Amino acid sequence: MSLLEKIIAGIKPLNREVMEQAKKHQAQLTKPPGSLGILEELAIKIAGIRSELFPELKKKRVVVFAGDHGVVEEGVSAYPQEVTAQMVYNFLRGGAGINAIASKVGAEVEVVDIGVEQDFPELEGLVSKKLRKGTRNFIKEPAMTRQEVIKAIEVGIERAQVAFEEGVDMIAGGDMGIGNTTSSSAIFSSLLNFYPEEVVGAGTGLEPEKIAHKIQIIKTAFKQYQQEIDFNNPLEVLRVFGGYEIAGLVGLYLGSAEKRLICLVDGFIATAGALITIRLCPLLKDFLIFAHCSEEKGHRIVLEKIGVKPLLNLELRLGEGTGACLGMEIVESALFCHNQMATFESAGVSEKI
Amino acid sequence: MSLLEKIIAGIKPLNREVMEQAKKHQAQLTKPPGSLGILEELAIKIAGIRSELFPELKKKRVVVFAGDHGVVEEGVSAYPQEVTAQMVYNFLRGGAGINAIASKVGAEVEVVDIGVEQDFPELEGLVSKKLRKGTRNFIKEPAMTRQEVIKAIEVGIERAQVAFEEGVDMIAGGDMGIGNTTSSSAIFSSLLNFYPEEVVGAGTGLEPEKIAHKIQIIKTAFKQYQQEIDFNNPLEVLRVFGGYEIAGLVGLYLGSAEKRLICLVDGFIATAGALITIRLCPLLKDFLIFAHCSEEKGHRIVLEKIGVKPLLNLELRLGEGTGACLGMEIVESALFCHNQMATFESAGVSEKI
Repeated sequence: MSLLEKIIAGIKPLNREVMEQAKKHQAQLTKPPGSLGILEELAIKIAGIRSELFPELKKKRVVVFAGDHGVVEEGVSAYPQEVTAQMVYNFLRGGAGINAIASKVGAEVEVVDIGVEQDFPELEGLVSKKLRKGTRNFIKEPAMTRQEVIKAIEVGIERAQVAFEEGVDMIAGGDMGIGNTTSSSAIFSSLLNFYPEEVVGAGTGLEPEKIAHKIQIIKTAFKQYQQEIDFNNPLEVLRVFGGYEIAGLVGLYLGSAEKRLICLVDGFIATAGALITIRLCPLLKDFLIFAHCSEEKGHRIVLEKIGVKPLLNLELRLGEGTGACLGMEIVESALFCHNQMATFESAGVSEKI
Repeated sequence: MSLLEKIIAGIKPLNREVMEQAKKHQAQLTKPPGSLGILEELAIKIAGIRSELFPELKKKRVVVFAGDHGVVEEGVSAYPQEVTAQMVYNFLRGGAGINAIASKVGAEVEVVDIGVEQDFPELEGLVSKKLRKGTRNFIKEPAMTRQEVIKAIEVGIERAQVAFEEGVDMIAGGDMGIGNTTSSSAIFSSLLNFYPEEVVGAGTGLEPEKIAHKIQIIKTAFKQYQQEIDFNNPLEVLRVFGGYEIAGLVGLYLGSAEKRLICLVDGFIATAGALITIRLCPLLKDFLIFAHCSEEKGHRIVLEKIGVKPLLNLELRLGEGTGACLGMEIVESALFCHNQMATFESAGVSEKI
């Protein structure tokens, strides 16, 4: 049994019994039933994941996977490839969006080089897991080998396990990789049967004619692989179009579920990883918390098709785990209400007429 | 000049010069331009309110105004009137939704009795400003006198001034008052020309036939006052249909703007107060931050008609300031990004191709 198979086999469903108790508890709290909306749903879900009626979360971490994409040489991004490596330095120095939001939220930031083009010297705080200097250009050949896909997923699993060992109980995945909206769009088109036009957006800020080019690149690739791969096979789609960072996210989600960590999904790229994960292990749909709907064009319809409701709509399109990190505070508020509010009985408040 | 006139005269527009600088600063931060969406807009607005390029907010408070409504005797609420007073005790003991969320967010909770039916003994933490034991039943006579409206607004202004003196720089208004969705629906119908059917919802959880009755009560009242009042006059509409707690919120918003506090608007009832405020002083539309869209039926279309975009959509319908309090964390995240992120130049990150 491979590590991946072992982890998937080890993921147990949410604890429905505890969820029933949590639901009953919510109905006794001093508020009109249902009036805390999504906060009630969240509290019940978290009780089910943690198998605890009154779960408390104490340590938060965002794991940002950085990797480059061979397809960038086709001119699909508004920023040059070197930005991936430059942003890794920025993460380590604390200057990026995710650092600012994580410091507000009280989450640690872990940065993983899982496939950045550029070599790094030994850097404090950088987890070096480089599988290759960027993926291959998928209009020429599959982005990854089968072995690389599995290895990248295993890196993610390991990061979840390390987090668990270090006392983390709430985790989010982030991504950095110039070109990765192209990769994610191809994954969504493949697995959800969208036309590329429906899910391809501006990424970091492409002009309309460049967006048309990005769509064309994906269509060309689809034609090329149509005899070769099953577009419904999540691991094959990941191998051909994916990025190391997306595969890393898949592993992080699976590893988190196996360790019963609360795990939040960020935006467009993170959702590509989440979709693959759910296809590999449908139970994950109950575990993952989709933190926000990105402004990247396809994200809304992708979330709808997966059948999940994001917590936030703040028109973000930055990635790095920023939206997921913001979502952690909503989760915490849900638990504060669930754990701290008085009941009608204890507070002596009259119930509905 | 009355206190109300003085405060309104003292409200100066947002500082457009600082906002321009803040906008330029946002464009230099290490992220694709605009990719932090609403967080960028918030940071720029807050810079404009505070007249500071890098504003820092240090102390947060939620002021919850509690008042009763005479119209409750018409059977418009799913809960009995005594719940208003019972919830005041619950607030003071820390058992309500707003206490839980405020403790997560790090905000103080101030509870103001501005017109609760029940008398309270001297209670630690309760600000006693009772104007009357509940408003009058508006299908029989106007809810308040002209003098009471002004006095209730002045209570709100005073709470903003006290907050300012005590070092608060971010404030939210909350409400508690059985019957106050009826009052707010009548205010929205009057000032925004909605049919009552469009804005009346289930409140704390009315059955459909009771909602029809609630609509009928408002329609009856409209007929009764049609010769008597100008339905476009915010103070008149507030006097006839309002609640003391809604008037208190109006004062809180105006007083906060005058002191340049960051002020967040909660849900349905708080928005009724905000609408009256904006009609009294249109500048307030630039100041107020609408924190969330409530599940109460009319809230979405009301916000659209006012022309504002709420930060959160978490299907809350609790009131008490809960949504506004959650919004404070989004504001803080916006400022953390604005104040802490590196620039392209300082981080050595390449700009757009």
